[in-house]
Amino acid sequence: MQDPKTAGRNSAIIYSGGLDSTTLLYEYSNRIALAITFDYGSNHAEREIECARYHCQKLGIEHHVLKLDFFKQFMSSSLLSGAEAVPEDDYDEDNMHSTVVPFRNGIMLAIACGIAEDRGLDSVLIANHGGDHAIYPDCRPDFINSMDKAMRAGTYIHVGIEAPYTNISKADIVARGAKLGIDYSHTYSCYKGTALHCGRCATCRERQEAFRAAHVDDPTKYQS
Amino acid sequence: MQDPKTAGRNSAIIYSGGLDSTTLLYEYSNRIALAITFDYGSNHAEREIECARYHCQKLGIEHHVLKLDFFKQFMSSSLLSGAEAVPEDDYDEDNMHSTVVPFRNGIMLAIACGIAEDRGLDSVLIANHGGDHAIYPDCRPDFINSMDKAMRAGTYIHVGIEAPYTNISKADIVARGAKLGIDYSHTYSCYKGTALHCGRCATCRERQEAFRAAHVDDPTKYQS
Repeated sequence: MQDPKTAGRNSAIIYSGGLDSTTLLYEYSNRIALAITFDYGSNHAEREIECARYHCQKLGIEHHVLKLDFFKQFMSSSLLSGAEAVPEDDYDEDNMHSTVVPFRNGIMLAIACGIAEDRGLDSVLIANHGGDHAIYPDCRPDFINSMDKAMRAGTYIHVGIEAPYTNISKADIVARGAKLGIDYSHTYSCYKGTALHCGRCATCRERQEAFRAAHVDDPTKYQS
Repeated sequence: MQDPKTAGRNSAIIYSGGLDSTTLLYEYSNRIALAITFDYGSNHAEREIECARYHCQKLGIEHHVLKLDFFKQFMSSSLLSGAEAVPEDDYDEDNMHSTVVPFRNGIMLAIACGIAEDRGLDSVLIANHGGDHAIYPDCRPDFINSMDKAMRAGTYIHVGIEAPYTNISKADIVARGAKLGIDYSHTYSCYKGTALHCGRCATCRERQEAFRAAHVDDPTKYQS
């Protein structure tokens, strides 16, 4: 294990292996001491974790997968209930509400905060973005700001949140990643968790739209 | 499972089975739909859980024990490292620092918040108290207030924290519990986790002092 103090790295990142957090991983790679992937039993966990492993290995970043069983045990969401449960329509509020996993970002940030404090890292990176505000309350600036205050107040070394994508769009993220030369074919977004991206669910549509709006070629293989 | 809406119960409680949260359980019993005990692998988990089961059964409150393995895997604390690691001296800052489990209350509150949101419960009860402020940053009013804001902002139904003991002492808690007729022989505090309370560790001393200051007979059986 590397010593973050020696290496001048002060951050842990919440890293799913999806498009957004992979961009964040590359953008902040020289400050990241530790990447944490939370496996909460989502339909697409396996595909995402594979991608997360690939990029951490490539960048030489210490990586841990944390399995959290209580999500499936205590919470209901189409994201935890198999491919058939995921809606196939545009990425809007009515349609995506069933995919909400209650307070998921709050839970992941809290656990990452405890681990960061234990390791002497005073920053937790998370890749929430502007496109998620309407649907997921725990992606909004108000939540991030209060949670940042809670984490700083609740730790000895005042661990804070860095969420640099909070007010930009997924298209902006793709544009940043393209400049960094990220190979997005090794990222996974589809909420159905099939081997190829389904191309029909709201998350696939959002992904396609982000590449289109950013004028970046989409390397993703879709079923349709 | 009871329907909290029908029963008019709107709270989940973070319930260890210790003296403080047992008092809170009795004081708010008619508002509690769900008690959650987090088993994070502490030395005294088994004894506490036994007590938690006893009181929930007695009051007819639905009770779940959530096992969280990542604490032991990723965090260091004498509280997670066996009886020998726990210091035997007064309950003060220098002495108790080794027992800190990083951001424990933040993590428990975040998970309880997600479960509460899923169940339609808009309040999470926690029994942090004034005596813990010096040692545990995630027991202080600043933390509780910010975390409350983060939970409200990050959930659809605006789940909030109720922490009515934040500014009172453990002696005040014992005094309240005595009025409610709570049998404190069925609560466990010792950080060593031995069958009888050790009577020497800082937590046992704090417990003894609270009964003394409240002028309440201490029913606890101590080794010494």
